[in-house]
Amino acid sequence: MPVEFPNLSDLRDGRLSESLQAILDNKTKPPGSLGQLETLARQLGEILGSETPELVAPQLLVFAGDHGLAARGVSAYPGDVTWQMVENFLAGGAAVSVLARLHGVTLSVVDCGVAHDFLAPGNVVRPGLLVRKIAAGTADSSTQPAMTVAQCEMAINNGMALVRQLPGNVLLLGEMGIGNTSAASLLMARLSGAPIAQCTGAGTGLDEAAVVRKTALLSQVLERHAKALSPLQALAAFGGFEMATMLGSVMQAARQRRVIVVDGFITGAVVMLAHALQPLVLQRCVFAHRSGERGHGLMLEQLGVRPMLDLGLRLGEGSGAALAWPLLRSACAILSDMASFASAGVSQKSATAPH
Amino acid sequence: MPVEFPNLSDLRDGRLSESLQAILDNKTKPPGSLGQLETLARQLGEILGSETPELVAPQLLVFAGDHGLAARGVSAYPGDVTWQMVENFLAGGAAVSVLARLHGVTLSVVDCGVAHDFLAPGNVVRPGLLVRKIAAGTADSSTQPAMTVAQCEMAINNGMALVRQLPGNVLLLGEMGIGNTSAASLLMARLSGAPIAQCTGAGTGLDEAAVVRKTALLSQVLERHAKALSPLQALAAFGGFEMATMLGSVMQAARQRRVIVVDGFITGAVVMLAHALQPLVLQRCVFAHRSGERGHGLMLEQLGVRPMLDLGLRLGEGSGAALAWPLLRSACAILSDMASFASAGVSQKSATAPH
Repeated sequence: MPVEFPNLSDLRDGRLSESLQAILDNKTKPPGSLGQLETLARQLGEILGSETPELVAPQLLVFAGDHGLAARGVSAYPGDVTWQMVENFLAGGAAVSVLARLHGVTLSVVDCGVAHDFLAPGNVVRPGLLVRKIAAGTADSSTQPAMTVAQCEMAINNGMALVRQLPGNVLLLGEMGIGNTSAASLLMARLSGAPIAQCTGAGTGLDEAAVVRKTALLSQVLERHAKALSPLQALAAFGGFEMATMLGSVMQAARQRRVIVVDGFITGAVVMLAHALQPLVLQRCVFAHRSGERGHGLMLEQLGVRPMLDLGLRLGEGSGAALAWPLLRSACAILSDMASFASAGVSQKSATAPH
Repeated sequence: MPVEFPNLSDLRDGRLSESLQAILDNKTKPPGSLGQLETLARQLGEILGSETPELVAPQLLVFAGDHGLAARGVSAYPGDVTWQMVENFLAGGAAVSVLARLHGVTLSVVDCGVAHDFLAPGNVVRPGLLVRKIAAGTADSSTQPAMTVAQCEMAINNGMALVRQLPGNVLLLGEMGIGNTSAASLLMARLSGAPIAQCTGAGTGLDEAAVVRKTALLSQVLERHAKALSPLQALAAFGGFEMATMLGSVMQAARQRRVIVVDGFITGAVVMLAHALQPLVLQRCVFAHRSGERGHGLMLEQLGVRPMLDLGLRLGEGSGAALAWPLLRSACAILSDMASFASAGVSQKSATAPH
C-alpha cells in the first residue's frame, strides 16, 4: 500500500510560544538562566499545546532488524548479536532496559525484520515484543536494493499503525541491528551530499583500518544505487526494515503531536529522512545527545539542532534517549511548579543597570 | 578554633578500579560505548568502595549568605533577593526546589550569614532550614577583608560539623548570595593566577558595560588584598560566609568518602579552594555541568575535570547539580543491573577484525 504522509501544522505560529516565554521569564530566576532547559520547556509546551505540558506514559520503541550488508563485515560484531540483544532487551538486562526501567519509561521491542523467530510455534504474544516482521533481514545492498519498494512501504505503514495504538504522548526512539550504522551512513550521505568518509565511523567499535575498508565498501554501495535519489528510494536501497518502520512511527507521532525523543546516529538518520519528507517534523523532535559516532555531529549540524547531552555515547538502543528523559521531565516541572516573582514575593532585576 | 583538614586516601590506588573496569567491559555493550557514563560509574564505585555502589539519601545543601560588596552594584539584583530566595527555597518554589523534589533529592538551606532573620523570636526550628549564621552579611571587601580569620574558621568548622550529622552518602552543593559570583571570581583569579577579566562574567545577568565596571572594581579588590595569598587568607579577604561553610562541608564530605556533586561557578570556586588545600578532594567530586558564566569553562580546565552537562545554565542554587543527579543514578544502575555477555548469552566482539 503506497504511503501517505500527513501535512503538519507549524507549531510556532500561534501565541502560545510568546505566552510560554513570558511564563518562563516570570519564574523566580534571571531571564534565560536555565539555558537550554528553557528552550526545551518552550518546545514541549508548543508540541503538547499547553502552558503546563504534561508528559504522559512515555514509550520507548526499540526497532530491530537485520541487514544483508552485515555479512560483508561492516560491524565489529556478528549478525547473531541482533537477536541475542533482542532477547537481552526482553529479559531486562541491556543498557536501555536498565535506564528505561530506572527512569519510568515503558520499553517495547519491535521485530521489524530480525533473522530469528522470537515466538515459539503456536505462540503469538510475548510481553514487551511487537512482531512486525517484513522478512528475516534485508538483502545485501552491495549487490541489490536492501528492500523492495513494497517491503519498504509495508514497513512504513507498520510503523504508522504501531503508533496509532500506542498510549501516551511521547515516543522515544531506539534501534538494534548489526550493520545499521552502515545504512545510516549511506542515508546521510545520500540525503546531505556529504562525502561518505564524513558519514562513516566505527559503529560498535571498528579499528581505524576496518573503518577505511567499511568506507570503501559503502562508497561502492552508494555508487551502485546512484539513481536512488528520493528519500524513499534511498531508504529502500540501503535499508533497513527497522529504519523504515521507525520512519512510519516518526511520521505518525509527529502528526499526533507526540514528543519524539531522538537517540543517536541511526535514529538521527531516520529523522533526516522524515525531515526531507516533511520539514516540520523537526519541531516535534528533541535530540537527546551528540554521540561519539563520527558523522553524528555533522548530522546534527545539518539538521540545525542542538542536542541535550554530549557524553560520548555510542551504544544506540535508545540508551541516550532514556538518559535524556529526566531532562524533559525537569523542563516540564519548571513550567508547572516553579514560583513566579509575584507569587514568591521576590524582587525583580534592578530597573537601572548597576553602577 | 583553628581548622584542621583531614588527610585523604588516594582512591585510585587499589584493585577496585581495575575490577570496576572489567565489570563494565563485560556488560552487554561494546567496550566504552557508554562514554562518560562509564567514567562516572567507575568513579562512583571508587568513592563508595563498591563494585555495585548505591547512592543513599542524597542531600542538597544550599549555602546562603550576603556580601558587603553587593552594595557596590556588582549584581543585577538587589541584596534583598538573597533572603527572598531563601524563603522561596523553603516554600518549594525555586528552580532547585522543584528539581530536587522531582528527582528525589532532599534539599536544606543553610543560613551561613544572610542579612535577615528567618526564625520568629523564640523559634529555633524551621523545616528545611539550618541556621549557622556567622553575621548578617560579610564586610565590603573593597574596603576591608570580607571576614575576620576567626569568622572564616568558624564558618569552616560549622560546615564540617554539618556534614558529620548529615544522613546519606552524597552531598550536592548549592548556594545563594547576591554578590557571590564576584567572590568566586576573586578567589579563582587569586588561586589560578588568571587575569581577573577572564574570571569575571555577567553573574545573574549584567550587561556588557556593567561587566566592565564590575571587572574594574574586582581588579581593585584583588589589588587591595594583594597579600592574601594562601587559600584561607584569600577566602577571608573575599568571602563569603556561605563559601567558607561550604568549604568545610566539602572537606568533611571528602573525608567520609561521600560523593560530592559540584554545581556551577561559585561551588566550583569553593572546590578550587578545597583542591588547593587537599588535591585528592577532586577524586570525590562529580562536576554536574559547564555553566554559561564566563570563567567557568576555564575553571574546569584548570581543575582538569570534565562536566556531565553543558546546557548554558547560569542560575546557581544547585540547580545544575539537581539536573545531573539522574545521571549518577543511571551510572550506578549500569553497574548493578546490566547483564554481562556471559549471563545474557550474547556474542562478544569478533576476535578478528572484520574484512
